[in-house]
Amino acid sequence: MVSLDFISKLAHPADTKIILCVLDGLGGAPGGDKGLTELDEAKTPNLDALALKSSLGLADPVSPGITPGSGPGHMGLFGYDPIKYFIGRGVLSAAGVGLEMKQGDIAARINFCTVDGQGIVTDRRAGRIPTETCVKLCEKLGGELKVPGVEILVRPEREHRAAVLFRGEGLDHNIGDTDPQREGLHWLEPKALKPEAAKAAGIVGQFLAQVGKILSAEKPANMVLLRGFDAPPHLPQFADAFKLKAAAVAVYPMYRGLASLVGMKVIPVEGEAIKDEVATVGKIWKDYDFVYLHVKKTDSYGEDGNRPSKVHIIEEFDAALPKLLALKPSVLVITGDHSTPTLLKGHSWHPCPVLLAADTARRDGFARFTEVNCARGTLGHFQAVDLMPLMLAHALRLDKFGA
Amino acid sequence: MVSLDFISKLAHPADTKIILCVLDGLGGAPGGDKGLTELDEAKTPNLDALALKSSLGLADPVSPGITPGSGPGHMGLFGYDPIKYFIGRGVLSAAGVGLEMKQGDIAARINFCTVDGQGIVTDRRAGRIPTETCVKLCEKLGGELKVPGVEILVRPEREHRAAVLFRGEGLDHNIGDTDPQREGLHWLEPKALKPEAAKAAGIVGQFLAQVGKILSAEKPANMVLLRGFDAPPHLPQFADAFKLKAAAVAVYPMYRGLASLVGMKVIPVEGEAIKDEVATVGKIWKDYDFVYLHVKKTDSYGEDGNRPSKVHIIEEFDAALPKLLALKPSVLVITGDHSTPTLLKGHSWHPCPVLLAADTARRDGFARFTEVNCARGTLGHFQAVDLMPLMLAHALRLDKFGA
Repeated sequence: MVSLDFISKLAHPADTKIILCVLDGLGGAPGGDKGLTELDEAKTPNLDALALKSSLGLADPVSPGITPGSGPGHMGLFGYDPIKYFIGRGVLSAAGVGLEMKQGDIAARINFCTVDGQGIVTDRRAGRIPTETCVKLCEKLGGELKVPGVEILVRPEREHRAAVLFRGEGLDHNIGDTDPQREGLHWLEPKALKPEAAKAAGIVGQFLAQVGKILSAEKPANMVLLRGFDAPPHLPQFADAFKLKAAAVAVYPMYRGLASLVGMKVIPVEGEAIKDEVATVGKIWKDYDFVYLHVKKTDSYGEDGNRPSKVHIIEEFDAALPKLLALKPSVLVITGDHSTPTLLKGHSWHPCPVLLAADTARRDGFARFTEVNCARGTLGHFQAVDLMPLMLAHALRLDKFGA
Repeated sequence: MVSLDFISKLAHPADTKIILCVLDGLGGAPGGDKGLTELDEAKTPNLDALALKSSLGLADPVSPGITPGSGPGHMGLFGYDPIKYFIGRGVLSAAGVGLEMKQGDIAARINFCTVDGQGIVTDRRAGRIPTETCVKLCEKLGGELKVPGVEILVRPEREHRAAVLFRGEGLDHNIGDTDPQREGLHWLEPKALKPEAAKAAGIVGQFLAQVGKILSAEKPANMVLLRGFDAPPHLPQFADAFKLKAAAVAVYPMYRGLASLVGMKVIPVEGEAIKDEVATVGKIWKDYDFVYLHVKKTDSYGEDGNRPSKVHIIEEFDAALPKLLALKPSVLVITGDHSTPTLLKGHSWHPCPVLLAADTARRDGFARFTEVNCARGTLGHFQAVDLMPLMLAHALRLDKFGA
């Protein structure tokens, strides 16, 4: 890994185009008698044909053995050292719901919850209210909240989840969660974890008092719990760092938010299927030179431990692949931000399979895109943060280093 | 490689159990017409069967091309950056003979030697006196040595080797060796290599003068040579760093000492054979969640250039393997602390073959555990210091990093 600054000095504009396909949680682990992974099991004629003339490799999202959240997983793929450029859940959530954060803003994640008359939390998720209710409650809060000197924006995410942004002078994000983490306890007063956060903690306290009044007649969601107070990190933007005009095609809020944080243009997608995302890439193709395409459900089904469905999503991507190839990208990469084996029902540390297709890519000649073939591939076993320089290189967008 | 502190923050206790088998100097180099390594030659039906459903890889003990001593080799395997946490020979020897070192102590390695009437060294190893003689001489020294204000402990190792510890105020370990490195020269006065070591060098000088008198009538061992003055480094302990209750099963003193330095409980072994060590693991299995098992003779025969015997020891380990597997460890790793090819009759820089068996391990499907198969394995080519995070991950003992 070289520094982002090192890459930025070598990066230059070009006419070439790159597609980065992130199949969230793509990597798998052994299952069944034969110990096959989900990629082993999937029937993927188009990926197989592409693998034959591509370079394969395995990427560690952070470092061997480390299981990343979506934030670090994506930061690595986008070329940012995921330890140096750590992004908290609050910023992820806020960005993901379309709150464009500026330096000085602070944000937190909201869970709508149910409290009794004494403020005791009786349901931390308010019965997982439908998203429409969440939207309605956020609008109500937005219309009625008033804390002097501070702008407060509340945006719905999904079900009981939302995000809140506080914009004002001298706000520090070092504030404790107000979620007591289990039912039967009173929600916690926001506590300044550092002296400089005292002002912000006071404002959050006023916010909560007002929320309690505004929602008092609502059922079942009559209060909010706040978690993960955070401020946006300074992230060099894609256009400056890599000289790329970049677009993001993603259905889920968090990934749209991540892309937005590094300066990608987030493109609206009509529909939620992979083919809808691919069609969206086609529509904007002429206007961008880097497209990040995110497929969520490989991860969702991995988390559920639903092996047949995870396999099916890989096959669905395979079916959509020819339309991406028809765009003739100079460089096409297919990988994950981390592994989510159905075996573990959660993110894991297993390195991510990587396929890099380009006219300049050495051909491994493997007939299938699988983890084991990737382990023997010409890209080797590398850190995910090195993928961005590799893509830029194959797109002939990096100058020579030294004479 | 991430920092030990980074890993410590993610590590948590669990019910899973890990066995780390270190076959000292396991890795080999080509020999004979076919250029086979010792692992290639060995008949290992149990290792072969295990390899088929395990992950393989190659680990550099320190960095490509660097040949480690036993100290750095083990520090890496134990998860400590071997350059940052460097352990000198003196501390290794002292710990290995059961001298529990404290901060402020200094230690050195002793060779009993033969000197003539003028102090000229005529045999640097005193004819490799038997261990019993060494024990007797150490007891004699312990009973008669008296340097005011300093506690001096002398402990026998094997043959002509022993260790000495100095405990007192203001002792610095930067003292030159007193071993002239070849015969026909006078033993060297202990020299302070830094001004702050002047006091300690003076005390060592008094020690040597007394030793010369106490041993003057002994034959052949009538003097000592001191090497590798050292002080114990600050090593985060296994229980804190990795949340592991760890035990060490090793016959040789140095490896017991290394394990003790990182906070492992050193278990007595009845007998010296591999099967005796494996039986010991079985006896303590329920009380620990990490067991380090050390096999010495792969290295010893490597150093001797005795290829058939090194091959035989690998086969002896293979025969004992089923009893380890019967304990059903969550994670079992088989590797070396470095390579000791019989071709070179010494430690080498060749990366170490690694086999990692766990339900969560991707299956490489190789039918044999050999260096070449390891080079194509799914663990890839990594630094030995990353093995500990990998073992913890497969034992489901590391939290996710970030959201």
